[in-house]
Amino acid sequence: MRKIHVIGIGAGDPDQLTLQAVKALRSTDVFFILDKGEVKADLTELRRDMLEAHLTAGTYRVVQARDPERDRSAGGASYSPAVGDWRSARADIYERLIAEELGEDQTGAFLVWGDPSLYDSTLAILEEVLERGAVAFEYDVVPGISSVSALVARHRTGLNRVARPVQITTGRRLAEGFPEGVDDVVVMLDAHQAFQRYADEDVDIYWGAYIGTPDEILVSGPIAEAAPRIERLRAEARERKGWIMDTYLLRRRPRDGND
Amino acid sequence: MRKIHVIGIGAGDPDQLTLQAVKALRSTDVFFILDKGEVKADLTELRRDMLEAHLTAGTYRVVQARDPERDRSAGGASYSPAVGDWRSARADIYERLIAEELGEDQTGAFLVWGDPSLYDSTLAILEEVLERGAVAFEYDVVPGISSVSALVARHRTGLNRVARPVQITTGRRLAEGFPEGVDDVVVMLDAHQAFQRYADEDVDIYWGAYIGTPDEILVSGPIAEAAPRIERLRAEARERKGWIMDTYLLRRRPRDGND
Ligand SMILES: C[S@@+](CC[C@H](N)C(=O)[O-])C[C@H]1O[C@@H](n2cnc3c(N)ncnc32)[C@H](O)[C@@H]1O
Ligand SMILES: C[S@@+](CC[C@H](N)C(=O)[O-])C[C@H]1O[C@@H](n2cnc3c(N)ncnc32)[C@H](O)[C@@H]1O
Repeated sequence: MRKIHVIGIGAGDPDQLTLQAVKALRSTDVFFILDKGEVKADLTELRRDMLEAHLTAGTYRVVQARDPERDRSAGGASYSPAVGDWRSARADIYERLIAEELGEDQTGAFLVWGDPSLYDSTLAILEEVLERGAVAFEYDVVPGISSVSALVARHRTGLNRVARPVQITTGRRLAEGFPEGVDDVVVMLDAHQAFQRYADEDVDIYWGAYIGTPDEILVSGPIAEAAPRIERLRAEARERKGWIMDTYLLRRRPRDGND
Repeated sequence: MRKIHVIGIGAGDPDQLTLQAVKALRSTDVFFILDKGEVKADLTELRRDMLEAHLTAGTYRVVQARDPERDRSAGGASYSPAVGDWRSARADIYERLIAEELGEDQTGAFLVWGDPSLYDSTLAILEEVLERGAVAFEYDVVPGISSVSALVARHRTGLNRVARPVQITTGRRLAEGFPEGVDDVVVMLDAHQAFQRYADEDVDIYWGAYIGTPDEILVSGPIAEAAPRIERLRAEARERKGWIMDTYLLRRRPRDGND
């Protein structure tokens, strides 16, 4: 029976790999690296560096394929209804990779950015491949440090306040309004700086770009003061590197003076 | 200058430690282990085992202290307004540990269950100690695999659905009503199985107890079918071990047939 590991590799710092992830890497014969376009070449490089750091050359194979999915870190604020089409185009590719590149008794792995549970479609695609029934395999999931955990660790703050909830959402949703019933909101996939809408409110922002990498940028403070700085730093960094990945926590200050 | 690492150690599986966490352990002179009462003796044991697995005997010191905080995994559903008093009682202890047990140029560490950003007060207490000004130190935070990431990895599902938000909340909050604006809700600190309230609704549950440990129990399915099983398994396990830690994801099924 073919076996697949879906391995969370952390959100930028290679030392965010867990011991469990390193063991899973070491038990893998074939790594599937899905190339998401030129802007992500740096991230593909980081995956290859990880393999070289933890594995013996010659003991594994890397198969690189072109991922039909458009770049969601840039386009996330405008998810199209055609998301289902992408998924099935990707399922075609995953199916072919597993059927053609993996021997009957071999183990393959997909290296997933951050934690596979957050805004990542690998698990859904593997389920779709299994449902189609053309190729059989077992799979497991190795959790990883998400950009959310990395963000708040770097800012040395919690996700939630005592006994209070936290919501994780997208830039597109935040642009529609501040979520109901929560004062702590983490925003991912925001190409349009939706936080600007809240610049007049009593909200603190904890923002980070390229977290965990040598390019990391962190800004925090009352949103009215921090927003212009973030806009400038974000534009400069995006210009310089050609792509950006950023995440932030919005924290509404208590209205009654209690925390 | 004294230095402190706040290290997320994962939620049960010692292999959930990151490489960054192992490096932080190795650069620590004194480990502070806060003993949260008898039910948590197993967890204290797990921390000591981790140190023994990754460090050379004789190169570090462990200082164990009694944590005045009541057991929130059991009592989380009834947070009292006196939470501020606990925090300052704990700050007294942390302050004393850092001032008396750590030399001026030494590094101490607190080993935090799961990820330090989720329902953990270590960071807030350290901030309180710093504000008091009696002892000075630098500190950093090493993110860890949370029980939330571990839960969904074991169930091989995502936290959110495509482009949708997810909320992380407490059993107490869930008992007040299903959160607004989200269909995916992770519940922690639930001593009273608040999910039972939703047994008549179109909700799937992904439940796990002692995730990542040899005692791990997983149940998933439509809540109407799963709830009685969870109740029975939970009561049995709690009886057998004397304590339980469980977390679950509630996922409302789409009303319009779309995912
Ligand atoms: C498709 S989602 C994948 C998230 C990933 N599974 C995780 O756990 O972090 C991509 C989004 O994650 C966030 N992100 C990922 N890595 C990041 C990093 N190193 N710094 C800042 N944000 C990051 C950004 O919000 C980006 O738009
Ligand atoms: C005080 S909170 C600490 C959470 C921790 N910081 C984390 O990241 O998982 C304790 C709650 O976490 C959850 N939890 C922690 N470890 C768990 C495990 N191994 N299995 C199931 N739930 C766990 C339970 O909901 C428990 O009530």
